[in-house]
Amino acid sequence: MKTSLDCLPCFVRQTLDAARMVSTDPAFHESFLREILARITEMSLDTAPAVFGRELHRRIRGLSGRGDPYREAKERQNLFALALMPGLREEISAAPDPLILAARLAAAGNVIDLGAPGAISETSVRESIAQAMTRPLVGEENGFREEILSAENILYLADNAGEIVMDRLFIERLGPSRVTVAVRGGPILNDATRADARAAGLAEIVEIIDNGSDAPGTLLEDCSPEFLRRFEAADLVLAKGQGNFETLAGHPKNIFFLFKVKCPVIAAEAGAPVGAHVLIRSAGAQGRLA
Amino acid sequence: MKTSLDCLPCFVRQTLDAARMVSTDPAFHESFLREILARITEMSLDTAPAVFGRELHRRIRGLSGRGDPYREAKERQNLFALALMPGLREEISAAPDPLILAARLAAAGNVIDLGAPGAISETSVRESIAQAMTRPLVGEENGFREEILSAENILYLADNAGEIVMDRLFIERLGPSRVTVAVRGGPILNDATRADARAAGLAEIVEIIDNGSDAPGTLLEDCSPEFLRRFEAADLVLAKGQGNFETLAGHPKNIFFLFKVKCPVIAAEAGAPVGAHVLIRSAGAQGRLA
Repeated sequence: MKTSLDCLPCFVRQTLDAARMVSTDPAFHESFLREILARITEMSLDTAPAVFGRELHRRIRGLSGRGDPYREAKERQNLFALALMPGLREEISAAPDPLILAARLAAAGNVIDLGAPGAISETSVRESIAQAMTRPLVGEENGFREEILSAENILYLADNAGEIVMDRLFIERLGPSRVTVAVRGGPILNDATRADARAAGLAEIVEIIDNGSDAPGTLLEDCSPEFLRRFEAADLVLAKGQGNFETLAGHPKNIFFLFKVKCPVIAAEAGAPVGAHVLIRSAGAQGRLA
Repeated sequence: MKTSLDCLPCFVRQTLDAARMVSTDPAFHESFLREILARITEMSLDTAPAVFGRELHRRIRGLSGRGDPYREAKERQNLFALALMPGLREEISAAPDPLILAARLAAAGNVIDLGAPGAISETSVRESIAQAMTRPLVGEENGFREEILSAENILYLADNAGEIVMDRLFIERLGPSRVTVAVRGGPILNDATRADARAAGLAEIVEIIDNGSDAPGTLLEDCSPEFLRRFEAADLVLAKGQGNFETLAGHPKNIFFLFKVKCPVIAAEAGAPVGAHVLIRSAGAQGRLA
Protein backbone atom coordinates (compact mmCIF):
# COMPACT_ATOMS: atom_id res chain seq x y z
CA MET A 1 0.00 0.00 0.00
CA LYS A 2 0.99 3.60 -0.53
CA THR A 3 1.48 6.26 2.10
CA SER A 4 -1.71 8.02 3.18
CA LEU A 5 -1.86 11.71 4.05
CA ASP A 6 -2.97 10.43 7.46
CA CYS A 7 0.46 8.81 7.86
CA LEU A 8 2.18 12.22 7.85
CA PRO A 9 1.18 13.40 11.34
CA CYS A 10 2.23 9.96 12.57
CA PHE A 11 5.62 10.26 10.81
CA VAL A 12 6.21 13.52 12.67
CA ARG A 13 5.41 11.81 15.97
CA GLN A 14 7.66 8.84 15.10
CA THR A 15 10.46 11.27 14.34
CA LEU A 16 10.15 12.87 17.76
CA ASP A 17 9.98 9.44 19.43
CA ALA A 18 13.16 8.35 17.61
CA ALA A 19 15.02 11.56 18.55
CA ARG A 20 14.10 11.06 22.21
CA MET A 21 15.17 7.42 22.09
CA VAL A 22 18.77 8.38 21.29
CA SER A 23 19.19 11.70 23.12
CA THR A 24 17.94 13.72 26.06
CA ASP A 25 18.97 17.03 24.44
CA PRO A 26 15.94 19.16 23.45
CA ALA A 27 18.09 21.12 20.96
CA PHE A 28 18.87 17.87 19.14
CA HIS A 29 15.21 16.84 19.23
CA GLU A 30 14.26 20.15 17.60
CA SER A 31 16.95 20.16 14.93
CA PHE A 32 16.26 16.53 14.02
CA LEU A 33 12.51 17.17 13.87
CA ARG A 34 13.02 20.19 11.59
CA GLU A 35 15.34 18.19 9.31
CA ILE A 36 12.84 15.37 8.93
CA LEU A 37 9.87 17.76 8.59
CA ALA A 38 11.63 19.25 5.56
CA ARG A 39 11.96 15.71 4.16
CA ILE A 40 8.28 14.92 4.84
CA THR A 41 7.23 18.16 3.11
CA GLU A 42 8.81 16.91 -0.13
CA MET A 43 8.35 13.15 0.16
CA SER A 44 6.57 11.00 -2.38
CA LEU A 45 3.41 9.27 -1.23
CA ASP A 46 3.84 6.51 -3.81
CA THR A 47 5.82 4.17 -1.57
CA ALA A 48 4.79 2.20 1.53
CA PRO A 49 5.10 3.96 4.90
CA ALA A 50 7.92 1.50 5.68
CA VAL A 51 10.16 3.35 3.22
CA PHE A 52 9.92 6.47 5.34
CA GLY A 53 10.52 4.40 8.51
CA ARG A 54 13.66 2.91 7.00
CA GLU A 55 15.10 6.33 6.07
CA LEU A 56 14.17 7.89 9.41
CA HIS A 57 15.86 5.20 11.44
CA ARG A 58 18.93 4.99 9.21
CA ARG A 59 19.38 8.71 9.79
CA ILE A 60 18.89 8.54 13.56
CA ARG A 61 21.34 5.64 13.83
CA GLY A 62 23.85 7.61 11.76
CA LEU A 63 23.51 10.77 13.83
CA SER A 64 23.56 9.00 17.17
CA GLY A 65 26.46 6.69 16.32
CA ARG A 66 24.42 3.90 17.91
CA GLY A 67 24.07 0.84 15.72
CA ASP A 68 20.92 -0.38 17.45
CA PRO A 69 19.35 2.22 19.76
CA TYR A 70 16.44 -0.11 20.54
CA ARG A 71 18.63 -3.07 21.64
CA GLU A 72 17.94 -2.66 25.36
CA ALA A 73 14.22 -2.13 24.81
CA LYS A 74 14.14 -5.30 22.72
CA GLU A 75 15.91 -7.28 25.43
CA ARG A 76 13.41 -6.10 28.03
CA GLN A 77 10.54 -7.07 25.73
CA ASN A 78 11.98 -10.55 25.15
CA LEU A 79 12.52 -11.14 28.86
CA PHE A 80 9.00 -10.01 29.69
CA ALA A 81 7.49 -12.30 27.05
CA LEU A 82 9.71 -15.23 28.06
CA ALA A 83 8.35 -14.94 31.59
CA LEU A 84 4.81 -15.26 30.21
CA MET A 85 5.70 -18.16 27.90
CA PRO A 86 5.23 -21.20 30.19
CA GLY A 87 1.77 -20.07 31.30
CA LEU A 88 0.69 -19.32 27.75
CA ARG A 89 1.97 -22.68 26.54
CA GLU A 90 -0.20 -24.39 29.15
CA GLU A 91 -3.23 -22.35 28.07
CA ILE A 92 -2.62 -23.43 24.48
CA SER A 93 -2.28 -27.11 25.42
CA ALA A 94 -5.53 -26.99 27.37
CA ALA A 95 -7.48 -25.16 24.64
CA PRO A 96 -10.11 -26.93 22.49
CA ASP A 97 -8.28 -25.68 19.40
CA PRO A 98 -4.60 -25.22 20.32
CA LEU A 99 -3.49 -24.09 16.83
CA ILE A 100 -6.03 -21.27 16.67
CA LEU A 101 -5.41 -20.12 20.25
CA ALA A 102 -1.69 -20.05 19.44
CA ALA A 103 -2.45 -17.91 16.37
CA ARG A 104 -4.58 -15.56 18.48
CA LEU A 105 -1.82 -15.19 21.06
CA ALA A 106 0.73 -14.51 18.32
CA ALA A 107 -1.57 -11.69 17.13
CA ALA A 108 -1.84 -10.42 20.72
CA GLY A 109 1.96 -10.24 20.92
CA ASN A 110 1.92 -7.81 18.01
CA VAL A 111 0.91 -5.08 20.49
CA ILE A 112 4.65 -4.80 21.32
CA ASP A 113 5.30 -2.32 18.50
CA LEU A 114 7.38 0.80 19.15
CA GLY A 115 6.43 2.31 15.79
CA ALA A 116 2.72 2.53 16.59
CA PRO A 117 1.08 5.40 18.48
CA GLY A 118 0.65 5.08 22.24
CA ALA A 119 2.99 3.73 24.88
CA ILE A 120 3.44 -0.02 25.33
CA SER A 121 3.11 -1.25 28.87
CA GLU A 122 3.02 -4.66 30.50
CA THR A 123 -0.65 -3.87 31.13
CA SER A 124 -1.36 -3.37 27.43
CA VAL A 125 0.29 -6.73 26.65
CA ARG A 126 -1.82 -8.46 29.30
CA GLU A 127 -4.97 -6.80 27.96
CA SER A 128 -4.10 -7.94 24.47
CA ILE A 129 -3.60 -11.50 25.72
CA ALA A 130 -6.96 -11.40 27.51
CA GLN A 131 -8.55 -10.27 24.24
CA ALA A 132 -6.91 -13.23 22.45
CA MET A 133 -8.27 -15.65 25.06
CA THR A 134 -11.85 -14.54 24.54
CA ARG A 135 -12.29 -13.31 20.96
CA PRO A 136 -11.77 -14.94 17.56
CA LEU A 137 -9.46 -13.32 15.05
CA VAL A 138 -11.24 -11.01 12.63
CA GLY A 139 -10.91 -12.56 9.18
CA GLU A 140 -10.02 -16.03 8.03
CA GLU A 141 -9.59 -18.42 10.93
CA ASN A 142 -11.39 -21.16 8.99
CA GLY A 143 -9.64 -20.52 5.67
CA PHE A 144 -6.34 -20.57 7.52
CA ARG A 145 -7.16 -23.86 9.27
CA GLU A 146 -7.78 -25.50 5.90
CA GLU A 147 -4.73 -24.02 4.21
CA ILE A 148 -2.39 -25.05 6.99
CA LEU A 149 -3.28 -28.73 6.55
CA SER A 150 -1.56 -28.95 3.19
CA ALA A 151 1.32 -26.47 3.61
CA GLU A 152 4.74 -28.10 3.41
CA ASN A 153 7.05 -25.12 3.36
CA ILE A 154 5.96 -22.23 5.57
CA LEU A 155 7.92 -18.98 5.66
CA TYR A 156 7.13 -17.10 8.87
CA LEU A 157 7.93 -13.37 8.71
CA ALA A 158 8.48 -12.22 12.28
CA ASP A 159 7.77 -8.65 13.33
CA ASN A 160 8.86 -7.45 16.76
CA ALA A 161 10.98 -8.43 19.74
CA GLY A 162 8.92 -9.82 22.61
CA GLU A 163 6.22 -10.73 20.13
CA ILE A 164 8.63 -13.28 18.66
CA VAL A 165 8.30 -15.32 21.87
CA MET A 166 4.57 -15.68 21.17
CA ASP A 167 5.48 -16.53 17.58
CA ARG A 168 7.52 -19.40 18.95
CA LEU A 169 4.46 -20.86 20.70
CA PHE A 170 2.51 -20.60 17.44
CA ILE A 171 5.33 -22.23 15.49
CA GLU A 172 5.43 -25.11 17.98
CA ARG A 173 1.80 -25.78 16.99
CA LEU A 174 2.37 -25.26 13.27
CA GLY A 175 5.05 -27.95 13.41
CA PRO A 176 8.59 -26.51 13.39
CA SER A 177 9.92 -28.95 10.79
CA ARG A 178 8.05 -27.22 7.97
CA VAL A 179 8.70 -23.64 9.17
CA THR A 180 11.49 -21.17 8.41
CA VAL A 181 11.52 -17.91 10.36
CA ALA A 182 12.71 -14.72 8.69
CA VAL A 183 13.73 -11.69 10.73
CA ARG A 184 14.89 -8.23 9.64
CA GLY A 185 18.35 -7.98 8.13
CA GLY A 186 19.30 -4.99 10.26
CA PRO A 187 18.13 -3.04 13.29
CA ILE A 188 14.98 -0.96 12.82
CA LEU A 189 12.81 0.16 15.74
CA ASN A 190 12.09 -2.85 17.98
CA ASP A 191 11.70 -5.19 15.03
CA ALA A 192 13.12 -8.65 15.66
CA THR A 193 16.57 -9.48 14.32
CA ARG A 194 18.58 -12.72 14.63
CA ALA A 195 19.46 -11.86 18.24
CA ASP A 196 15.77 -11.79 19.15
CA ALA A 197 15.05 -15.07 17.38
CA ARG A 198 17.85 -16.61 19.45
CA ALA A 199 16.53 -15.00 22.65
CA ALA A 200 13.14 -16.59 21.97
CA GLY A 201 14.80 -19.99 21.60
CA LEU A 202 13.65 -20.25 18.01
CA ALA A 203 17.08 -21.19 16.68
CA GLU A 204 16.76 -24.49 18.53
CA ILE A 205 13.59 -25.53 16.70
CA VAL A 206 13.59 -23.89 13.25
CA GLU A 207 15.93 -22.43 10.68
CA ILE A 208 16.35 -18.66 11.06
CA ILE A 209 17.10 -16.48 8.06
CA ASP A 210 17.11 -12.73 7.67
CA ASN A 211 15.62 -10.69 4.85
CA GLY A 212 18.70 -8.58 4.22
CA SER A 213 16.77 -5.34 4.75
CA ASP A 214 16.52 -2.76 7.52
CA ALA A 215 12.98 -1.62 6.60
CA PRO A 216 10.13 -2.04 9.13
CA GLY A 217 8.30 -4.43 6.82
CA THR A 218 9.13 -6.55 3.80
CA LEU A 219 10.14 -4.31 0.88
CA LEU A 220 10.94 -7.06 -1.58
CA GLU A 221 13.10 -4.78 -3.75
CA ASP A 222 15.23 -4.22 -0.67
CA CYS A 223 15.59 -7.87 0.35
CA SER A 224 18.52 -10.20 -0.30
CA PRO A 225 18.51 -12.68 -3.23
CA GLU A 226 18.63 -15.54 -0.72
CA PHE A 227 15.53 -14.24 1.06
CA LEU A 228 13.71 -13.77 -2.24
CA ARG A 229 14.53 -17.36 -3.19
CA ARG A 230 13.07 -18.62 0.08
CA PHE A 231 10.05 -16.36 -0.28
CA GLU A 232 9.47 -17.72 -3.78
CA ALA A 233 9.88 -21.34 -2.65
CA ALA A 234 7.46 -21.17 0.28
CA ASP A 235 3.96 -22.50 -0.36
CA LEU A 236 2.57 -20.46 2.51
CA VAL A 237 3.81 -17.19 4.00
CA LEU A 238 2.73 -16.12 7.46
CA ALA A 239 3.41 -12.41 7.83
CA LYS A 240 3.23 -10.78 11.24
CA GLY A 241 2.55 -7.12 11.91
CA GLN A 242 1.32 -3.98 10.20
CA GLY A 243 4.66 -3.37 8.48
CA ASN A 244 4.58 -6.70 6.66
CA PHE A 245 0.90 -6.11 5.80
CA GLU A 246 1.48 -2.65 4.33
CA THR A 247 4.44 -3.86 2.23
CA LEU A 248 3.01 -7.21 1.03
CA ALA A 249 -0.79 -6.77 0.92
CA GLY A 250 -2.00 -7.43 -2.62
CA HIS A 251 1.00 -9.62 -3.50
CA PRO A 252 -0.07 -12.68 -5.54
CA LYS A 253 1.75 -15.02 -3.14
CA ASN A 254 -0.31 -17.14 -0.73
CA ILE A 255 0.11 -14.97 2.37
CA PHE A 256 -1.79 -14.79 5.63
CA PHE A 257 -1.30 -11.58 7.59
CA LEU A 258 -1.60 -11.80 11.36
CA PHE A 259 -1.52 -8.59 13.40
CA LYS A 260 -3.13 -6.18 15.78
CA VAL A 261 -4.63 -3.15 14.04
CA LYS A 262 -2.93 -0.10 15.55
CA CYS A 263 -3.82 2.86 13.35
CA PRO A 264 -6.80 4.17 11.37
CA VAL A 265 -4.99 3.95 8.02
CA ILE A 266 -4.33 0.22 8.44
CA ALA A 267 -7.83 -0.23 9.87
CA ALA A 268 -9.34 1.14 6.65
CA GLU A 269 -7.05 -1.05 4.54
CA ALA A 270 -7.72 -4.19 6.60
CA GLY A 271 -11.45 -3.56 7.02
CA ALA A 272 -11.23 -4.01 10.79
CA PRO A 273 -11.30 -1.47 13.61
CA VAL A 274 -8.29 -0.20 15.55
CA GLY A 275 -7.59 -2.71 18.33
CA ALA A 276 -8.81 -5.75 16.37
CA HIS A 277 -6.63 -8.84 16.04
CA VAL A 278 -6.82 -9.92 12.42
CA LEU A 279 -5.91 -12.88 10.22
CA ILE A 280 -6.24 -11.72 6.62
CA ARG A 281 -5.39 -13.45 3.40
CA SER A 282 -3.44 -11.54 0.78
CA ALA A 283 -5.80 -9.87 -1.67
CA GLY A 284 -3.74 -11.38 -4.47
CA ALA A 285 -4.00 -14.89 -3.08
CA GLN A 286 -7.78 -14.62 -2.76
CA GLY A 287 -8.09 -14.62 -6.54
CA ARG A 288 -5.98 -17.77 -6.98
CA LEU A 289 -7.42 -20.75 -8.80
CA ALA A 290 -6.19 -23.64 -6.66
CA MET B 1 3.01 28.99 27.15
CA LYS B 2 5.24 28.32 24.19
CA THR B 3 4.79 25.70 21.50
CA SER B 4 6.10 22.25 22.43
CA LEU B 5 7.76 19.93 19.95
CA ASP B 6 4.87 17.61 20.80
CA CYS B 7 2.50 20.19 19.28
CA LEU B 8 4.03 19.68 15.82
CA PRO B 9 2.53 16.27 14.98
CA CYS B 10 -0.79 17.67 16.18
CA PHE B 11 -0.42 20.75 13.93
CA VAL B 12 0.01 18.41 10.95
CA ARG B 13 -3.16 16.55 11.92
CA GLN B 14 -5.06 19.84 12.41
CA THR B 15 -3.92 20.94 8.97
CA LEU B 16 -5.35 17.80 7.39
CA ASP B 17 -8.59 18.17 9.37
CA ALA B 18 -8.94 21.78 8.18
CA ALA B 19 -8.27 20.85 4.54
CA ARG B 20 -10.93 18.13 4.72
CA MET B 21 -13.40 20.52 6.33
CA VAL B 22 -13.39 22.80 3.28
CA SER B 23 -12.85 20.35 0.40
CA THR B 24 -13.35 16.75 -0.67
CA ASP B 25 -10.49 16.95 -3.21
CA PRO B 26 -7.49 14.78 -2.18
CA ALA B 27 -5.19 16.82 -4.45
CA PHE B 28 -6.11 19.95 -2.49
CA HIS B 29 -5.60 18.12 0.82
CA GLU B 30 -2.11 17.10 -0.29
CA SER B 31 -1.03 20.48 -1.65
CA PHE B 32 -2.36 22.29 1.42
CA LEU B 33 -0.66 19.81 3.75
CA ARG B 34 2.66 20.24 1.93
CA GLU B 35 2.36 24.04 2.06
CA ILE B 36 1.73 24.05 5.80
CA LEU B 37 4.38 21.37 6.47
CA ALA B 38 6.91 23.73 4.92
CA ARG B 39 5.68 26.46 7.29
CA ILE B 40 5.87 24.14 10.31
CA THR B 41 9.44 23.15 9.36
CA GLU B 42 10.52 26.79 9.76
CA MET B 43 8.16 28.03 12.47
CA SER B 44 9.28 29.56 15.73
CA LEU B 45 8.40 27.68 18.90
CA ASP B 46 8.48 30.88 20.96
CA THR B 47 4.80 31.67 20.56
CA ALA B 48 1.69 29.93 21.89
CA PRO B 49 0.21 27.12 19.75
CA ALA B 50 -2.77 29.46 19.14
CA VAL B 51 -0.57 31.60 16.86
CA PHE B 52 -0.16 28.64 14.52
CA GLY B 53 -3.89 27.89 14.71
CA ARG B 54 -4.71 31.47 13.77
CA GLU B 55 -2.43 31.39 10.70
CA LEU B 56 -3.59 27.95 9.60
CA HIS B 57 -7.25 28.88 9.68
CA ARG B 58 -6.74 32.30 8.08
CA ARG B 59 -5.04 30.50 5.21
CA ILE B 60 -7.70 27.83 4.82
CA ARG B 61 -10.45 30.48 4.89
CA GLY B 62 -8.57 32.46 2.28
CA LEU B 63 -8.02 29.47 -0.02
CA SER B 64 -11.55 28.14 0.34
CA GLY B 65 -13.27 31.49 -0.05
CA ARG B 66 -15.48 30.49 2.89
CA GLY B 67 -15.61 33.08 5.63
CA ASP B 68 -16.60 30.57 8.32
CA PRO B 69 -16.20 26.94 7.22
CA TYR B 70 -17.24 25.71 10.67
CA ARG B 71 -20.54 27.68 10.77
CA GLU B 72 -22.78 24.65 10.15
CA ALA B 73 -20.87 22.49 12.62
CA LYS B 74 -21.24 25.22 15.23
CA GLU B 75 -24.99 25.45 14.62
CA ARG B 76 -25.37 21.69 15.06
CA GLN B 77 -23.35 21.86 18.28
CA ASN B 78 -25.50 24.70 19.63
CA LEU B 79 -28.74 22.87 18.80
CA PHE B 80 -27.52 19.67 20.41
CA ALA B 81 -26.51 21.49 23.61
CA LEU B 82 -29.74 23.52 23.69
CA ALA B 83 -31.69 20.26 23.68
CA LEU B 84 -29.75 19.13 26.75
CA MET B 85 -30.11 22.49 28.54
CA PRO B 86 -33.48 22.09 30.33
CA GLY B 87 -32.49 18.73 31.86
CA LEU B 88 -29.10 20.03 32.95
CA ARG B 89 -30.68 23.13 34.50
CA GLU B 90 -32.93 20.88 36.60
CA GLU B 91 -29.93 18.82 37.71
CA ILE B 92 -28.16 22.00 38.77
CA SER B 93 -31.19 23.26 40.71
CA ALA B 94 -31.50 19.95 42.56
CA ALA B 95 -27.78 19.70 43.40
CA PRO B 96 -26.43 20.29 46.93
CA ASP B 97 -24.02 22.85 45.48
CA PRO B 98 -25.60 24.29 42.31
CA LEU B 99 -22.75 26.73 41.57
CA ILE B 100 -20.10 24.01 41.59
CA LEU B 101 -22.19 21.55 39.59
CA ALA B 102 -22.77 24.31 37.03
CA ALA B 103 -18.98 24.89 36.87
CA ARG B 104 -18.40 21.15 36.40
CA LEU B 105 -20.93 21.00 33.58
CA ALA B 106 -19.36 24.04 31.92
CA ALA B 107 -16.04 22.14 32.01
CA ALA B 108 -17.77 19.07 30.56
CA GLY B 109 -19.05 21.18 27.66
CA ASN B 110 -15.44 21.94 26.76
CA VAL B 111 -15.24 18.50 25.15
CA ILE B 112 -16.88 20.11 22.08
CA ASP B 113 -13.53 21.23 20.63
CA LEU B 114 -12.77 20.68 16.95
CA GLY B 115 -9.11 21.63 17.42
CA ALA B 116 -8.37 18.72 19.76
CA PRO B 117 -7.46 15.19 18.67
CA GLY B 118 -10.25 12.64 18.31
CA ALA B 119 -13.73 12.95 16.89
CA ILE B 120 -16.49 14.61 18.91
CA SER B 121 -19.69 12.64 19.14
CA GLU B 122 -22.92 13.07 21.06
CA THR B 123 -21.71 10.06 23.05
CA SER B 124 -18.51 11.80 24.07
CA VAL B 125 -20.52 14.83 25.25
CA ARG B 126 -22.82 12.60 27.31
CA GLU B 127 -19.82 10.80 28.80
CA SER B 128 -18.26 14.11 29.70
CA ILE B 129 -21.49 15.21 31.39
CA ALA B 130 -21.65 11.94 33.34
CA GLN B 131 -18.07 12.58 34.50
CA ALA B 132 -19.11 16.08 35.66
CA MET B 133 -22.03 14.66 37.64
CA THR B 134 -19.83 12.29 39.61
CA ARG B 135 -16.36 13.81 39.93
CA PRO B 136 -15.04 17.08 41.41
CA LEU B 137 -12.98 19.38 39.25
CA VAL B 138 -9.24 18.83 39.58
CA GLY B 139 -7.81 21.98 41.13
CA GLU B 140 -9.34 24.84 43.02
CA GLU B 141 -13.04 24.30 43.61
CA ASN B 142 -12.74 25.69 47.14
CA GLY B 143 -10.51 28.62 46.22
CA PHE B 144 -12.92 29.46 43.45
CA ARG B 145 -15.93 29.29 45.78
CA GLU B 146 -14.30 31.86 48.07
CA GLU B 147 -13.16 34.14 45.29
CA ILE B 148 -16.54 34.23 43.64
CA LEU B 149 -18.19 35.63 46.79
CA SER B 150 -16.43 38.97 46.47
CA ALA B 151 -16.14 39.33 42.68
CA GLU B 152 -18.10 42.31 41.31
CA ASN B 153 -17.00 42.40 37.70
CA ILE B 154 -16.48 39.01 36.10
CA LEU B 155 -15.20 38.69 32.54
CA TYR B 156 -16.13 35.27 31.14
CA LEU B 157 -14.01 34.19 28.16
CA ALA B 158 -16.07 31.67 26.20
CA ASP B 159 -14.44 28.95 24.15
CA ASN B 160 -16.54 26.83 21.79
CA ALA B 161 -19.98 26.64 20.22
CA GLY B 162 -22.25 24.14 21.96
CA GLU B 163 -20.13 24.50 25.07
CA ILE B 164 -21.40 28.08 25.33
CA VAL B 165 -24.86 26.71 26.17
CA MET B 166 -23.36 25.04 29.26
CA ASP B 167 -21.57 28.32 29.97
CA ARG B 168 -24.97 29.97 30.05
CA LEU B 169 -26.13 27.61 32.83
CA PHE B 170 -23.00 28.42 34.81
CA ILE B 171 -23.47 32.16 34.28
CA GLU B 172 -27.07 31.90 35.53
CA ARG B 173 -25.59 30.62 38.80
CA LEU B 174 -22.76 33.16 38.91
CA GLY B 175 -25.36 35.93 38.69
CA PRO B 176 -25.60 37.44 35.21
CA SER B 177 -25.64 41.05 36.44
CA ARG B 178 -21.92 40.95 37.28
CA VAL B 179 -20.84 38.97 34.21
CA THR B 180 -19.69 40.07 30.75
CA VAL B 181 -19.13 37.35 28.16
CA ALA B 182 -16.35 37.73 25.59
CA VAL B 183 -16.31 35.64 22.41
CA ARG B 184 -13.78 35.51 19.57
CA GLY B 185 -13.67 38.50 17.23
CA GLY B 186 -13.71 36.36 14.10
CA PRO B 187 -14.33 32.77 13.00
CA ILE B 188 -11.70 30.21 14.02
CA LEU B 189 -12.45 26.48 14.23
CA ASN B 190 -15.67 25.93 16.18
CA ASP B 191 -14.83 28.68 18.66
CA ALA B 192 -17.84 30.70 19.74
CA THR B 193 -18.49 34.06 18.10
CA ARG B 194 -21.34 36.54 18.69
CA ALA B 195 -23.72 34.35 16.67
CA ASP B 196 -23.15 31.46 19.08
CA ALA B 197 -23.62 33.65 22.15
CA ARG B 198 -26.96 34.73 20.67
CA ALA B 199 -27.88 31.12 19.85
CA ALA B 200 -27.25 30.18 23.48
CA GLY B 201 -29.60 32.98 24.59
CA LEU B 202 -26.77 34.72 26.42
CA ALA B 203 -27.50 38.11 24.86
CA GLU B 204 -30.75 38.19 26.83
CA ILE B 205 -29.04 37.92 30.22
CA VAL B 206 -25.53 39.43 29.92
CA GLU B 207 -23.53 41.88 27.86
CA ILE B 208 -21.66 40.19 24.99
CA ILE B 209 -18.39 41.63 23.72
CA ASP B 210 -15.82 40.19 21.35
CA ASN B 211 -12.06 40.19 21.73
CA GLY B 212 -11.30 41.54 18.26
CA SER B 213 -9.11 38.54 17.42
CA ASP B 214 -9.46 35.41 15.29
CA ALA B 215 -6.97 33.34 17.31
CA PRO B 216 -8.13 30.14 19.07
CA GLY B 217 -7.32 31.60 22.49
CA THR B 218 -6.69 35.04 23.96
CA LEU B 219 -3.54 36.53 22.43
CA LEU B 220 -3.67 39.87 24.21
CA GLU B 221 -1.41 41.57 21.64
CA ASP B 222 -3.99 40.61 19.04
CA CYS B 223 -7.07 41.82 20.93
CA SER B 224 -8.97 45.09 20.49
CA PRO B 225 -8.34 48.10 22.80
CA GLU B 226 -11.94 47.84 24.00
CA PHE B 227 -11.46 44.18 24.98
CA LEU B 228 -8.18 45.01 26.73
CA ARG B 229 -9.95 47.76 28.70
CA ARG B 230 -12.61 45.30 29.86
CA PHE B 231 -9.98 42.66 30.63
CA GLU B 232 -8.10 45.20 32.74
CA ALA B 233 -11.25 46.37 34.56
CA ALA B 234 -12.48 42.87 35.53
CA ASP B 235 -11.69 41.76 39.08
CA LEU B 236 -12.08 38.12 38.08
CA VAL B 237 -11.58 36.45 34.71
CA LEU B 238 -13.10 33.04 34.00
CA ALA B 239 -11.33 31.56 31.00
CA LYS B 240 -12.75 28.50 29.30
CA GLY B 241 -10.80 25.99 27.24
CA GLN B 242 -7.26 24.93 26.47
CA GLY B 243 -6.71 27.84 24.05
CA ASN B 244 -7.38 30.45 26.70
CA PHE B 245 -5.21 28.51 29.16
CA GLU B 246 -2.25 28.26 26.82
CA THR B 247 -2.40 31.98 25.94
CA LEU B 248 -3.11 33.39 29.44
CA ALA B 249 -1.52 30.95 31.92
CA GLY B 250 1.02 32.80 34.04
CA HIS B 251 -0.65 36.19 33.49
CA PRO B 252 -0.67 38.22 36.74
CA LYS B 253 -4.41 38.84 36.43
CA ASN B 254 -6.78 36.96 38.73
CA ILE B 255 -7.86 34.25 36.30
CA PHE B 256 -9.51 30.88 36.80
CA PHE B 257 -9.14 28.45 33.90
CA LEU B 258 -11.91 25.91 33.42
CA PHE B 259 -11.47 23.20 30.80
CA LYS B 260 -11.21 19.57 29.85
CA VAL B 261 -7.61 18.42 29.36
CA LYS B 262 -7.39 17.11 25.80
CA CYS B 263 -3.70 16.65 25.02
CA PRO B 264 -0.52 15.53 26.77
CA VAL B 265 1.18 18.91 26.36
CA ILE B 266 -1.60 20.73 28.22
CA ALA B 267 -1.77 17.86 30.72
CA ALA B 268 1.87 18.42 31.64
CA GLU B 269 1.34 22.18 31.89
CA ALA B 270 -1.84 21.85 33.96
CA GLY B 271 -0.58 19.01 36.15
CA ALA B 272 -3.65 16.89 35.44
CA PRO B 273 -4.14 13.87 33.18
CA VAL B 274 -5.74 13.87 29.74
CA GLY B 275 -9.51 13.62 30.24
CA ALA B 276 -9.55 15.53 33.55
CA HIS B 277 -11.89 18.47 34.06
CA VAL B 278 -9.85 21.18 35.73
CA LEU B 279 -10.35 24.51 37.50
CA ILE B 280 -6.93 26.11 37.79
CA ARG B 281 -5.91 29.52 39.04
CA SER B 282 -3.47 31.56 36.98
CA ALA B 283 0.09 30.96 38.16
CA GLY B 284 0.54 34.74 38.28
CA ALA B 285 -2.51 35.23 40.48
CA GLN B 286 -1.36 32.57 42.93
CA GLY B 287 1.49 34.81 44.05
CA ARG B 288 -0.79 37.79 44.77
CA LEU B 289 -0.79 39.36 48.22
CA ALA B 290 -4.49 40.00 48.99
